[in-house]
Amino acid sequence: MRILLTGAAGFLGSHLSSRLVSEGHKVIGVDNLSTGRIQFLSKALDNDSFSFVRLDLFTDDFDELITDVDIIYHFAANADVRFGVSRPRRDVIQNTLVTHHLLEAARRQGVSKFVFASTGSVYGDAFIIPTPEDCPFPVQTSLYGASKVAAEGLVTAYSTAYGIQSYIFRFVSILGPRYSHGHVFDFYKQLKTDGEILKVLGDGRQRKSYLHIQDCIGGIDIGINLGADLVNLFNLGTDMVCSVNESIDVICRHIGCSPQLDYSGGDRGWVGDSPLIHLDTAKINALGWVPRYTIQQSIISTVDYLVHNQWLLENGDT
Amino acid sequence: MRILLTGAAGFLGSHLSSRLVSEGHKVIGVDNLSTGRIQFLSKALDNDSFSFVRLDLFTDDFDELITDVDIIYHFAANADVRFGVSRPRRDVIQNTLVTHHLLEAARRQGVSKFVFASTGSVYGDAFIIPTPEDCPFPVQTSLYGASKVAAEGLVTAYSTAYGIQSYIFRFVSILGPRYSHGHVFDFYKQLKTDGEILKVLGDGRQRKSYLHIQDCIGGIDIGINLGADLVNLFNLGTDMVCSVNESIDVICRHIGCSPQLDYSGGDRGWVGDSPLIHLDTAKINALGWVPRYTIQQSIISTVDYLVHNQWLLENGDT
Repeated sequence: MRILLTGAAGFLGSHLSSRLVSEGHKVIGVDNLSTGRIQFLSKALDNDSFSFVRLDLFTDDFDELITDVDIIYHFAANADVRFGVSRPRRDVIQNTLVTHHLLEAARRQGVSKFVFASTGSVYGDAFIIPTPEDCPFPVQTSLYGASKVAAEGLVTAYSTAYGIQSYIFRFVSILGPRYSHGHVFDFYKQLKTDGEILKVLGDGRQRKSYLHIQDCIGGIDIGINLGADLVNLFNLGTDMVCSVNESIDVICRHIGCSPQLDYSGGDRGWVGDSPLIHLDTAKINALGWVPRYTIQQSIISTVDYLVHNQWLLENGDT
Repeated sequence: MRILLTGAAGFLGSHLSSRLVSEGHKVIGVDNLSTGRIQFLSKALDNDSFSFVRLDLFTDDFDELITDVDIIYHFAANADVRFGVSRPRRDVIQNTLVTHHLLEAARRQGVSKFVFASTGSVYGDAFIIPTPEDCPFPVQTSLYGASKVAAEGLVTAYSTAYGIQSYIFRFVSILGPRYSHGHVFDFYKQLKTDGEILKVLGDGRQRKSYLHIQDCIGGIDIGINLGADLVNLFNLGTDMVCSVNESIDVICRHIGCSPQLDYSGGDRGWVGDSPLIHLDTAKINALGWVPRYTIQQSIISTVDYLVHNQWLLENGDT
């Protein structure tokens, strides 16, 4: 199939690029390289089935790129939930409006399938834990979650209006090679500079579920191959949760340090942070998907990658 | 209090203008008059506590209007669910982006309360009927619903991020004086031209709940006065439903005609139409609100208004 993949040079997008090309698809990867890294695509670029186009999905036209495309994987996004309060326009533009631009182009060019990378943040402070896809209608607590739920609504409305089959994945935080923002990255970077002290947002007791990038990519693959509805909506996460403190413990033992912990305090790391994110994945499990990595293994895999890719520390996402 | 009311010259907005002024508030009404009508404000404009500013909330700046405002009532919207498919940008701009512009201005100017007119359409094809506010997370089936749920998400995220107290009302269709779009308007206009035949979208069996404008305004008043949470979310509707065929029967008996009915067919009037909208209003009922008009009374009140305001027939919303 011919695939347009947005955010191709990002953490998830670059892994997906490799996977899709290895499955025999023709992939056009696009990215504005604002946070994506062309280095992540070095292997994919060796393959004739992969082409890369640098463009901005908000300001540039891209209709001609998708005239023959069968499926759009929309993975470009502002992926950091933490900075919504200080940059309230960014989530709306990069997550909601860019998704609308893509849907409009898909409609005009007759693209028949649309895959969207959403987030467990759309559940806000969930009333049910673990949270299933059809949990009580949530109230948005972050601009990031709001911008993603807005995009989800557009995707599904376009499915109804124009028959574009959609696949929406709500992820927990993803870890593994090429991970370049979030708490493991921040902690490792801090400890690399000074192993004696570690600044921690919140009280360290926030609990999250983390998924390894390879499990994530496998889940997306299964969801798309086996999801047969007009709108296919799946949670992707592990059956476990890990507190920030437990995560710190795994990191410190792995790299061999025991810093003093300096908590900013409160039960949330930032405004709009959820003290507990744990998704019910029974729906995708029923299709045969189970993650292979434990959270601890995912954390160690991430740290090992950072150890061998110090260049990333100087250029993490902000 | 000092109030900014958007969509002030619209159906709901103009009734709200009168109510708020009569309660002793200072009201700045804004409207771009794209579908609003200055005639609807003729009484309000006689009052020194009401001022009107014609402006476009998408393209114009309006910060200076709200420097001293205590509360924003955001009722400007593209209010017609039916045309989403043919005009896919309109809902996104007029409903989602304009709401974001207003929230940004509210944040900059320190406005402490934000009232938002949402819709029962956010429930899509609801899994629970009557549908409570915390029903299972719905899938959007119309661009209108998607644009409103997107705006709701932004409003609540701004509540969390900046402490702006919010009041969101999810309405069924509203009827009564000044009603100028939707099925009663369309049917009356058709019958006025030719009482022998009536074109009906769908199979006439779609069932909806309708609320009289006076009951709606009363519900908003109670919700705002008694809702004490940071985010206050209320359904507003009646405990009854009425099929399109029953509605036709009421209209025809009232004006004395018996047309042949020409159905377009199917269980939906348009793409994204819900065959049944019926909201659970237990939450606002618990605060003491009960609607006074039956659906039949609301239909008759609407027809009577149209009979005495034929000018509106030539200028209905499209």
